[in-house]
Amino acid sequence: MTATSLCLYTPAGVLKAATPLRRAARRLAGYGFDVQVDEAALARHQRFGGDDDTRLAALHRVAAGAPDIAFATRGGYGLTRLLDRIDWKRIARSVEKGTRWVGQSDLTALQLGLLAHADGVTWAGPLACDDFGGDAVDDITEACFREAMSGELEAIGFRTEAGFDGLQARGTLWGGNLCLVTSLLGTSHWPRRAARGGVLFLEDVNEHPYRIERGLLQLHQAGVLDQQKAVVLGAFSAWRPSPLDRGYSLKTVVAHLRSVTKTPILTGLPFGHVPTKVTMPVGTRVELLVNGRDVLIGWDHAHH
Amino acid sequence: MTATSLCLYTPAGVLKAATPLRRAARRLAGYGFDVQVDEAALARHQRFGGDDDTRLAALHRVAAGAPDIAFATRGGYGLTRLLDRIDWKRIARSVEKGTRWVGQSDLTALQLGLLAHADGVTWAGPLACDDFGGDAVDDITEACFREAMSGELEAIGFRTEAGFDGLQARGTLWGGNLCLVTSLLGTSHWPRRAARGGVLFLEDVNEHPYRIERGLLQLHQAGVLDQQKAVVLGAFSAWRPSPLDRGYSLKTVVAHLRSVTKTPILTGLPFGHVPTKVTMPVGTRVELLVNGRDVLIGWDHAHH
Repeated sequence: MTATSLCLYTPAGVLKAATPLRRAARRLAGYGFDVQVDEAALARHQRFGGDDDTRLAALHRVAAGAPDIAFATRGGYGLTRLLDRIDWKRIARSVEKGTRWVGQSDLTALQLGLLAHADGVTWAGPLACDDFGGDAVDDITEACFREAMSGELEAIGFRTEAGFDGLQARGTLWGGNLCLVTSLLGTSHWPRRAARGGVLFLEDVNEHPYRIERGLLQLHQAGVLDQQKAVVLGAFSAWRPSPLDRGYSLKTVVAHLRSVTKTPILTGLPFGHVPTKVTMPVGTRVELLVNGRDVLIGWDHAHH
Repeated sequence: MTATSLCLYTPAGVLKAATPLRRAARRLAGYGFDVQVDEAALARHQRFGGDDDTRLAALHRVAAGAPDIAFATRGGYGLTRLLDRIDWKRIARSVEKGTRWVGQSDLTALQLGLLAHADGVTWAGPLACDDFGGDAVDDITEACFREAMSGELEAIGFRTEAGFDGLQARGTLWGGNLCLVTSLLGTSHWPRRAARGGVLFLEDVNEHPYRIERGLLQLHQAGVLDQQKAVVLGAFSAWRPSPLDRGYSLKTVVAHLRSVTKTPILTGLPFGHVPTKVTMPVGTRVELLVNGRDVLIGWDHAHH
């Protein structure tokens, strides 16, 4: 049996230093992966991990190599610049050969773009340097990632608020970073098919609740929320309250959202810019079940 | 001859204190306007100038009163919540009766929504408390606002970069705050007709250049930039550089934008979250002329 190959590459923001990359590579090798580091993983151009041509070439090179796992080192900003130039068929062919593209944050643009252009399944999950390049690794993040990559993982579970007991929803799992999701609205990279009736998951970081609300209301006003079977909110982290808020908070946002759409809005998904995050297949049909306050999102692993 | 009536109202964010409102009212009265203050101008609900019903009622009340000038006290966040509930015909009727709705920032949602739903002309310009409620008033802002409100103003002028000498462009003037403009993409409040070939102006505040670029690229990927006769950039102010930028700046953004679209991208419009700002008719056909580095955007004042 050959070891699972894993390629680390940098599609968006620059790596500040080489240490987290080295550490992530060592740790992932320790898990038994056959780790390669893409030749441009440490490239630098302004705030990007290499200029647009370099990052685009890296994406296409990783796709051509079709490793078992294509693992982004970090997010940041950069994929938006590449969307119109990505050879989606090339990425899709790597997925057909078995490559699992994993990441979150800015990677949302790649994941939803691939869904839009080629119905390709990718994995929302950790980022190599953020989650495996530091001093410690979150146990749940590690376990979930390793099970997902080995094909054993068939479901993720978490606790939500009361009030959804008995809920069942089936549809394509899609979503990611709220800013990135809304940034695709109106463009050819918007995943029309999934958006017409899936299970939408969202997270964001450094965004005040009023900005989160504006993004969610844009999705509502675009008809997206009403069309979903369920919306599942992850972590909206690292925002600073303002003295103007006077009681306005994330809870206000969720309550307002529930007042404008009948689609169930569940909170509590362990996903986002937080240490503990699940790994989930984007673009796969899932079944969401709520029992009491326990949510299970399951998929059939034979399908990918 | 009766004095020009001007109504101050609060459609979005809460006023922290009454002083700027009193000061603005006194100053505007000093200019000869017959100033009324809407009864809910100082309402408070969380971070909003009254709850949604209160602010919606204020908008409709101002429209019914059809003052010569409907002047928003401030922006903030709040109009997004009202878009699906605004009676656009009522607002449009006030415009037909001669009301000039003036503001910027969050008001962009109202202005473009009215353009989308009823082809109504409004005015991008100052906000009462921000621009007339402080210790001092910018001379250009004041002069331009007063001339625009009296109907005398037929053009605005500013200096741009070299390289556009001889440029002529005709189309509907539209735009506003970049975040608000992109937040309408994909929704029914998007001004389809103007977006198909106008003169698009944009500004923003507190947004890092990479976020400005992401918004502009969304407009590009939605086909909007290529369809414009010209794009005119105002101030993108109050953002903080990051140690990761390494030379990436607003100039990088403009250069990148120019590399992806043939539409002329002009900089230098005195507009945005800065003291000196022009007042311009949104939804009016304008002609843009460049002579050397001097830009003139003119309109025919008989048309509104």
